[in-house]
Amino acid sequence: MQNTLDINFNSPANTTWLSEDTLDKIESYTDRILQEVGILFEEESALKLWKSVDNKIARVEGERVYFDGEALRDIIRTSAPQHFTLHARNPDKSTVIGNGSTVFAPIYGAPKVQYIAKTGVKTGADAGQRTSNLGTLDDYRHLVSLAHDAEALQNTGFMLCVVHDHEQEEAHEYMLQAHLELSDKPFINSILSPASTAKGIELLSSEVRTSIKDKPYLLHLINSTPPLRFQVNPLSCLKVAVENGQACIITAYLMMGAMSPVTILGAMAQGYAEVLTGITLTQLYKPGTSVLFGLYSIPFSMKRMLPTFGDPLSMHTQAICRQLANRLNLPTLGYGGKSSAKVDDFQAGFEAGMATLTAYHQQSDFTMHAAGWLESGRCVDVEKFKREAELLKALV
Amino acid sequence: MQNTLDINFNSPANTTWLSEDTLDKIESYTDRILQEVGILFEEESALKLWKSVDNKIARVEGERVYFDGEALRDIIRTSAPQHFTLHARNPDKSTVIGNGSTVFAPIYGAPKVQYIAKTGVKTGADAGQRTSNLGTLDDYRHLVSLAHDAEALQNTGFMLCVVHDHEQEEAHEYMLQAHLELSDKPFINSILSPASTAKGIELLSSEVRTSIKDKPYLLHLINSTPPLRFQVNPLSCLKVAVENGQACIITAYLMMGAMSPVTILGAMAQGYAEVLTGITLTQLYKPGTSVLFGLYSIPFSMKRMLPTFGDPLSMHTQAICRQLANRLNLPTLGYGGKSSAKVDDFQAGFEAGMATLTAYHQQSDFTMHAAGWLESGRCVDVEKFKREAELLKALV
Repeated sequence: MQNTLDINFNSPANTTWLSEDTLDKIESYTDRILQEVGILFEEESALKLWKSVDNKIARVEGERVYFDGEALRDIIRTSAPQHFTLHARNPDKSTVIGNGSTVFAPIYGAPKVQYIAKTGVKTGADAGQRTSNLGTLDDYRHLVSLAHDAEALQNTGFMLCVVHDHEQEEAHEYMLQAHLELSDKPFINSILSPASTAKGIELLSSEVRTSIKDKPYLLHLINSTPPLRFQVNPLSCLKVAVENGQACIITAYLMMGAMSPVTILGAMAQGYAEVLTGITLTQLYKPGTSVLFGLYSIPFSMKRMLPTFGDPLSMHTQAICRQLANRLNLPTLGYGGKSSAKVDDFQAGFEAGMATLTAYHQQSDFTMHAAGWLESGRCVDVEKFKREAELLKALV
Repeated sequence: MQNTLDINFNSPANTTWLSEDTLDKIESYTDRILQEVGILFEEESALKLWKSVDNKIARVEGERVYFDGEALRDIIRTSAPQHFTLHARNPDKSTVIGNGSTVFAPIYGAPKVQYIAKTGVKTGADAGQRTSNLGTLDDYRHLVSLAHDAEALQNTGFMLCVVHDHEQEEAHEYMLQAHLELSDKPFINSILSPASTAKGIELLSSEVRTSIKDKPYLLHLINSTPPLRFQVNPLSCLKVAVENGQACIITAYLMMGAMSPVTILGAMAQGYAEVLTGITLTQLYKPGTSVLFGLYSIPFSMKRMLPTFGDPLSMHTQAICRQLANRLNLPTLGYGGKSSAKVDDFQAGFEAGMATLTAYHQQSDFTMHAAGWLESGRCVDVEKFKREAELLKALV
């Protein structure tokens, strides 16, 4: 935006949504969940770590761990940084995460890629038929180049599409290489497996020609598996990332009615419990680890058996995520561009516009899916990608 | 939205944007404009009224009036209601303006009407060619019926399209009749001329079969003519409305770079000056008059010689309008659905989504243009109208 003012629109003031009383209520439910139900940690190192801490903070029974919520918050508040620099190989492109303005990143995880065909029809809604295919390495490299060229995308993300024409481990290595060869912006590391995560760190280190240990260049998207569970793979990747001094996004992604209560308050309480434990883990493995707080929920349609991306309820979630993260002085994850639209139409725009502006209003520090998202995330639309990347320039 | 919570998302807390310091700064610029530059009032009754008040509050020189800003705010704060009921002929459809949730109204002022033609193509972006025409009375009546049927539109607005197939005064009377015949929701009165405004009040009174004096059934959209001017017609209509105990929206609609400074802070200071005087006028004519505070600005493109509807800057304006109105304890006007898109596509959606969600986030009390807006407001698209009316159900 042409900010011709001496005003910081992204002032921390712009984050009120729920009252402090309601947030207290969420927190008290969270603490009860942590105390009475606990969280499953399906990985040995994590369990070992939990066993090593004071029994009053974490109590391990099999794979289930019961917690004292306030103790977790104390650990996080005293240890996790309020903001951090995510380094780029080109130092000019390093970004500060948590400085009050958002970093936009493209779509993550689309199986399909869609291009506009050259039909000769050039304008408006009727322009060009689209052709789509399962993502290939060529597509992937094209998308990374687009993300690199887009001024408003300060991070090239990861898995802009799934690469289907190679075996998984190999595909992920090629994807990492694409980010290193075709861009000098920061990006997100693979979490296919701990080996894949280690490979990303190794590839980047050799590009930087020095140890990147304790200098975060890479983000890692570590999701809980709701309800109230962390699986072995994300926990293993988290450990590799943290031990190498890299940054993590710890996030709960809830489909209300399927993986969490249908009510937003219930979902928030559950998700907050998951995220609190995940973030504490990063700080116990290595105090001071750079971490983002993610918490997002969308309604799950029992009728269609699908999540309803773009639902106004999910806009509230982004706001509440920000408020809960503020209680821990942590930067937050936001979700732009999301929509249930099947084609690149008014619906795609309306829902993406609402999501993007909510991320912006509520001061997300790192906004995923900000360009290219279509068909509930099953497809990256290349034209939409370019257009959104252009639109986002008005918001950075 | 399925609000399954005991939470009021529309809590007044959700209105911080600029800091109080910055708002003070705007207010001090406003007061300087009022004191040193003054506002033109091009109508006799208004000038006579300003002459009748304390010279320290308003000082008249020809058509130009200089003001003491703080005195105007005092008058407004002690006199104008914080909320009021806008009555419908069907009491079940009366709406409280200023109770924390918004009333959505359709597009206002479109010269053209656009329908989707039956081409046999039924899905997505490629569906149907559109046909458009200059608005007719038939179109108008169709649009009022649509607005009446739309659950989320609690007000049928006015001039949903311009009626070209009748003389103006006659057209406005037919338009008013359409709102009375085809709907029992509240609506906005004509401001074509004072006679037209009086006609609306007369027609409504005879429908209600009792005097509507001092019981607001009708809103009146009274715009300043920036920079720093009120023309004779809006002032005359304002007088008729207020004398009949009806409600007014007093609003400054600024195109930054054309009718106001290019900076948002400058534009806000100017617009606030205009609105303050207009609102004070309503309270001096009749203390306690129901009034909404409107203040909106959009960038004007010097290159295209057009305003850029949907620009993110205009989202900030909505937020600042809310904050300034809060200082006067007044309900505010918001702007949903606005876009510069020429067709009903992603751009139309993205911009409309941003505008609508901003009105919602920032707690607009009455949101105009929430359905049907296309082509920078030159066209009402019937399909978009219906779709938006449906979408808005998630926000009421």
